[in-house]
Amino acid sequence: MNKNINIALVGLGQIGIYLYDQIQKKRKDIEIKTGKKINIIGISAKNINKKRRFKIDKKIFFKNPLDIIKKKNIDVLFEIIGQSDGISKKLVEEALSKKINVITPNKALIAKHGDYLGSIAEKNKVNLEFEAAVAGGIPVLRTIKEGLATNKIQKVYGILNGTSNYILSEMMSSKKSFKDVLIKAQKLGYAEPGNPKLDLNGYDALSKIKILSSLSFNKKISKKNSLMEGIEKIELKDIEIANQLNCRIKLVGISELINGYLFERVHPCLINKDNYIANVNGVMNAVIIEGNPIGESILQGEGAGPGPTSSALMSDLLSILRGNVKYPFGISRLKRSNPKIYNYDKYLNSLYLRFEVRDKPGVLAFITKKLANKNISVERLIQKPNYKNKTASIIIITHESKEKDAKICLKNITKNKNILKSPVLIRLL
Amino acid sequence: MNKNINIALVGLGQIGIYLYDQIQKKRKDIEIKTGKKINIIGISAKNINKKRRFKIDKKIFFKNPLDIIKKKNIDVLFEIIGQSDGISKKLVEEALSKKINVITPNKALIAKHGDYLGSIAEKNKVNLEFEAAVAGGIPVLRTIKEGLATNKIQKVYGILNGTSNYILSEMMSSKKSFKDVLIKAQKLGYAEPGNPKLDLNGYDALSKIKILSSLSFNKKISKKNSLMEGIEKIELKDIEIANQLNCRIKLVGISELINGYLFERVHPCLINKDNYIANVNGVMNAVIIEGNPIGESILQGEGAGPGPTSSALMSDLLSILRGNVKYPFGISRLKRSNPKIYNYDKYLNSLYLRFEVRDKPGVLAFITKKLANKNISVERLIQKPNYKNKTASIIIITHESKEKDAKICLKNITKNKNILKSPVLIRLL
Repeated sequence: MNKNINIALVGLGQIGIYLYDQIQKKRKDIEIKTGKKINIIGISAKNINKKRRFKIDKKIFFKNPLDIIKKKNIDVLFEIIGQSDGISKKLVEEALSKKINVITPNKALIAKHGDYLGSIAEKNKVNLEFEAAVAGGIPVLRTIKEGLATNKIQKVYGILNGTSNYILSEMMSSKKSFKDVLIKAQKLGYAEPGNPKLDLNGYDALSKIKILSSLSFNKKISKKNSLMEGIEKIELKDIEIANQLNCRIKLVGISELINGYLFERVHPCLINKDNYIANVNGVMNAVIIEGNPIGESILQGEGAGPGPTSSALMSDLLSILRGNVKYPFGISRLKRSNPKIYNYDKYLNSLYLRFEVRDKPGVLAFITKKLANKNISVERLIQKPNYKNKTASIIIITHESKEKDAKICLKNITKNKNILKSPVLIRLL
Repeated sequence: MNKNINIALVGLGQIGIYLYDQIQKKRKDIEIKTGKKINIIGISAKNINKKRRFKIDKKIFFKNPLDIIKKKNIDVLFEIIGQSDGISKKLVEEALSKKINVITPNKALIAKHGDYLGSIAEKNKVNLEFEAAVAGGIPVLRTIKEGLATNKIQKVYGILNGTSNYILSEMMSSKKSFKDVLIKAQKLGYAEPGNPKLDLNGYDALSKIKILSSLSFNKKISKKNSLMEGIEKIELKDIEIANQLNCRIKLVGISELINGYLFERVHPCLINKDNYIANVNGVMNAVIIEGNPIGESILQGEGAGPGPTSSALMSDLLSILRGNVKYPFGISRLKRSNPKIYNYDKYLNSLYLRFEVRDKPGVLAFITKKLANKNISVERLIQKPNYKNKTASIIIITHESKEKDAKICLKNITKNKNILKSPVLIRLL
């Protein structure tokens, strides 16, 4: 690698523009740390004239991002457009094929095409780096690939979506509904103003879990559908009941190997307040890694936003400048096989169930009998009457039972005319 | 670097022997990850015949560790003897001079001679790695050097000594005295049976803080005396009063830049229970890094023991095998200057003071007047009478004030005949 490094930056949204500024400011620091002089010689974005927080040099602007790598001699390209396919994929593909190192925070792209793109990088002996794709500023991928390199990891889980975590924390502290808090989150810039769906339905966290799995277990990224549930249906009522039960509700992403089979999932969890992640609030992210011989390792930090994301993007840049050519997924693509997928129907879990019922004799007995028929035993039961409406909430925490059975059971219970709403099911961590 | 890598291992205590076993077990995994075949071709320890948990190959045993590097062709040497000088220093010095990469968990050696040894490594273009020297299994040095490489770090602090943290946690939960809990800790292997002093007096944590400072602020390791206080004088009484004040007492190591001046210290702190590190219990370690643009980054994990320490030692080995020749302290020795040291006399801090006094009229007024004379104002005051002995405990939390003034004040107060013991002073975090 030459002493002078040419950089291209594609995508000038919030993160792109912050990164542009950071690169300019840290040029000297980077030269001290790596001996390389860096220069941004090409940028591209949808709109050159958009009002931006930092000034950009329009002389190096390209309308078509593909032109930068065609016309200029680029060493490192930042892809910060953020699509899972389309131009993002095409640009990264072409850059790697031209032996250009690529750095991206694009979790959707990596979760979907990471194996394919990684293999292009490997064949061309360049780096594809994506530290910023998971948990923003927390250097968790580097920690798994390097810091914990010889550990046998059994499980990796955590709070991976800052938007969801902010909303759940804020519902708890302000006693406001999901809808009201979402509006506040959008105003504060913690949730996308247009379409916050990918953050709220678990998709964003699941992309991150897929990347974490592949690195933790040295497997290809799983293509199979995983269990994915978001926070859109979480009611303030459940958050308050959870609180009385000494619990919090959090959106958690979990990946583990059960007898060698991969089990990936994202869903809201009821978590005892004594548990570390129950207390990770606001837009913070946290990742917990269980490995041998390391034991439990926790990393916590800001999970999103231009600052932390740029910190991760810059760490990738320094890694490249230091000349560390590496396998994008820690080991050679030839050694990474497809994961065997765990059959979720076998899984035993404790469940929180809430039924809204008519407050009539026999209703409770009806529910508990239905559960008993499917061998679902009750660990804890609370009935909260609402005298005014002659209704009641029945909350049941089950012992470990098959979720499949519980779901059949709930379906049957719902048919009864005394059951007023679809029951709520939240898994315990 | 050849495909076949020769390893020497010097020191077969608890950690050395565990590492020996790990290296044997992970040979194949390491080959997959790095393409290198590793072989242990030399070991050395005080006693070849000592009973050990794992079997060692006596054919490769050397009585004198220096003979290994003289007689064998070694690529990587593990120094696990643990002295700050003597044979540890000599061995590392000679190995690096012979272009042998060195890995060590020896914080005392690195804190004392790290700059000197690092410069030998740099001149000979080999690696000196010491991830295991700070916070055991938590890859915090790698995180600072790589994951947060372009951040401007202002402060790094945390719980860095597992022995002290275990004792303080256990005093709180069992309501037993320091002495009793220390005996238990020694039985459980959490404190050295012979001489636990270096863990308890703050020395161990201060060595780690010195290493963290040098990496965080890109300076040489400070030679100046820092503020160092251990937990030997912490009484159960203070832990219980702290609890009533919604606080915990923890041994904390702190390093920060105050207007460009380095301020390093290790001492017990009174920490509000809402604070993250107040809840890090038992033998766990935690490091908090405050940087820009990353914000606050937290790393928590097991801080000691053969498993976590071996995990860190192995991550160093993989880093070397992957061919990453690096500056031991992140940047070239030529760019690291001596830190300017903060004048502690200027520091303002809130203090917890406890006085044991005769329960007589005028004593409280005497104390508060003495404090007022030195401009030390009281934020909170609690008097707990002990009617039986006609004595009382007076607990004062001060507003921020100069510790120097407080100490002069305490000295004067102690002279009064109604003050029964030397007052207790604990800093607030």
